[in-house]
Amino acid sequence: MISSRADNDRVRDRGFMAEAIQLARRGLYSTDPNPRVGCLLVKDDRIVGRGWHRYAGEAHAEVDALAQAGSAARDATAYVTLEPCCHYGRTPPCSRALIEAGIARVVIATADANPQVAGQGIAQLQAAGIETSLGLLEAEAAALNAGFLRRMRGDRPFVRVKIAASVDGRTAMQSGESQWITAGPARADVQRLRARSSAIITGIGTLLEDNPSLTVRPSEMGDLDENASPRTQPCRIVLDSGLRTPPVAKMLQAEGRTVILCRQSNPSASEDAGKSERRTMLEAAGAEVTELPGRAGESGLTWPAIVEWLQAQPFNEVLIEAGATVAGSAITAGIVDELWLYQAPTLLGSRGRPLAELPFDHMAQQQRLTVLDRRQLGADTRTIFSLRASA
Amino acid sequence: MISSRADNDRVRDRGFMAEAIQLARRGLYSTDPNPRVGCLLVKDDRIVGRGWHRYAGEAHAEVDALAQAGSAARDATAYVTLEPCCHYGRTPPCSRALIEAGIARVVIATADANPQVAGQGIAQLQAAGIETSLGLLEAEAAALNAGFLRRMRGDRPFVRVKIAASVDGRTAMQSGESQWITAGPARADVQRLRARSSAIITGIGTLLEDNPSLTVRPSEMGDLDENASPRTQPCRIVLDSGLRTPPVAKMLQAEGRTVILCRQSNPSASEDAGKSERRTMLEAAGAEVTELPGRAGESGLTWPAIVEWLQAQPFNEVLIEAGATVAGSAITAGIVDELWLYQAPTLLGSRGRPLAELPFDHMAQQQRLTVLDRRQLGADTRTIFSLRASA
Repeated sequence: MISSRADNDRVRDRGFMAEAIQLARRGLYSTDPNPRVGCLLVKDDRIVGRGWHRYAGEAHAEVDALAQAGSAARDATAYVTLEPCCHYGRTPPCSRALIEAGIARVVIATADANPQVAGQGIAQLQAAGIETSLGLLEAEAAALNAGFLRRMRGDRPFVRVKIAASVDGRTAMQSGESQWITAGPARADVQRLRARSSAIITGIGTLLEDNPSLTVRPSEMGDLDENASPRTQPCRIVLDSGLRTPPVAKMLQAEGRTVILCRQSNPSASEDAGKSERRTMLEAAGAEVTELPGRAGESGLTWPAIVEWLQAQPFNEVLIEAGATVAGSAITAGIVDELWLYQAPTLLGSRGRPLAELPFDHMAQQQRLTVLDRRQLGADTRTIFSLRASA
Repeated sequence: MISSRADNDRVRDRGFMAEAIQLARRGLYSTDPNPRVGCLLVKDDRIVGRGWHRYAGEAHAEVDALAQAGSAARDATAYVTLEPCCHYGRTPPCSRALIEAGIARVVIATADANPQVAGQGIAQLQAAGIETSLGLLEAEAAALNAGFLRRMRGDRPFVRVKIAASVDGRTAMQSGESQWITAGPARADVQRLRARSSAIITGIGTLLEDNPSLTVRPSEMGDLDENASPRTQPCRIVLDSGLRTPPVAKMLQAEGRTVILCRQSNPSASEDAGKSERRTMLEAAGAEVTELPGRAGESGLTWPAIVEWLQAQPFNEVLIEAGATVAGSAITAGIVDELWLYQAPTLLGSRGRPLAELPFDHMAQQQRLTVLDRRQLGADTRTIFSLRASA
């Protein structure tokens, strides 16, 4: 069978867009809070410019590609993974740069998700006589910015729970001893997972027991290939209703923001005695302390209040690295999109700590999962589960 | 680089032996207690006979292949996965059949593991002027008969533990509710696993709670391809120290042997009251009841005594399908070779039953595992772990 010219064009377009998505991926660990975007400029079937966004405040992908192409950009086709911006932000609008460079055609994978902006970049291009199309490899491009696109729509961030466990589903011995369940390659992958996250949530239990820094250490991320190295730290968030975080906690010494979410003060409650002094000390130690409303008659935080706060922050992807209580309550609250399970080939025994506190009594309550990806990391296995059951 | 003639011969030999091993595999579910054996007859680079052992008491692989080849067997090379037998059993010796057929050369993968017989088949062939060689694809051929070869050496059977569990390492709800964790393809695989086993061990707890039949149902084994369908049931073994098995237990109605292993009677102990009556009733219901010695001052069975009994039986491969107590004690006793874990993409929750009762308190006690095989069975994953830690 002989392919039609239109067929050939479609296949070629797809190949170029796939390449643009690969370029976008290079920003996986570095563009936050911006999206990962790639741009490929093609003239007469020849690539004349490759661009990608590296760091917030620096060149957008389109501008990066145009700079590389120079005058060769005239009459070229631009393959862009996200609708070009049309407003002045920290950099001038990309729609204008494409028009001024004389681009003839723009192929776009995903539209801007912000309903008040969507389509305006495309409209500007069309008004300038540029041929545009939208939706090529849309799902692939959108997956790279799942959190960003959600935030633009005004939704909560994309939430992942990371757990390292044994084959028998234990994350630590009863005593809390857990170093190390997984080996080097899995731990490097956790560093990469942190690096792509805007924020990392942990619980006061984990903080008091392990005193983690929850930082990204680029030297421990393994081979980054063509990815840009992260320059900023994800925001650390401690769920600490009673404000028990010690001002000497390791994460308060580390670079980047640490936010402590505590329960709104109730001046009449005895457990709130000394709370304002503790708050002052924590703030002096560099923490941001935020009070959230809770359920009447209960002292803890609630996920709806936490999510409402998260939604007001510039967070695209949020990672929960906590103990079984926090992980379990997040899953039960229905706010987890993915479970990243690092499973080591070992049995830690029936006294060990559970994967997540999920107080189910009947099979009907079980939380079904869908496997999105499974791969070997040294002796350990990483499985990414979606919390939505498969159809 | 031009291969030498010797190189070519070696590659060809390997290909033919690999084919003989494939033939042997067809007996995976049917030859018990005999080994799985395949035989390929090749003359002038052409296959003139393919044979395999199907059922105990029927033709051995060599005789099956020779019957197919007829007079074409003269001066052929025989590829046999196990050293030909040289004694009269239920069928005449294969060494003699090969000699009488005029076979010129015999290539053997694994020697007979019985130290009192090993090498005698080869010696007979050599005495008749037949060229022989031993050890080609030995590991691959031996893996097919790991239990049989062990038994021939006088060792304990090859022991597997099968567990169906959730991602959080739970085999059932606290109540025992567990139907179904895994789906059809995994359950069909369990049927195949049972079919290759000589015996299936369970505990009295599982028997009282689930009343399982523990039978092989060939119609539920899925596509058997070229494998022969099993004709006999694996022996069912109940670990029931106090002889609490009800005479109406399902497995006593099923075809095949059911052995109940109980603790040696102690006429002075009050818990033994009525035991001999219960024994009589169970035997009347078709059970074989065997008393085993135990540890002084304890009422239970011990794995050393169970293994000693197993070793005296014609069991090659033994499967443990039991609850967390039996599975855990077998693992702790160090008598488990492989863990077959069927893992379903679900979270059953922290109240669920553990994978195996392993009372570890320190990371140093953990039972490391080595992954031998991992595959997808529908939505579930089957991982075969060796209980030996990797080097």
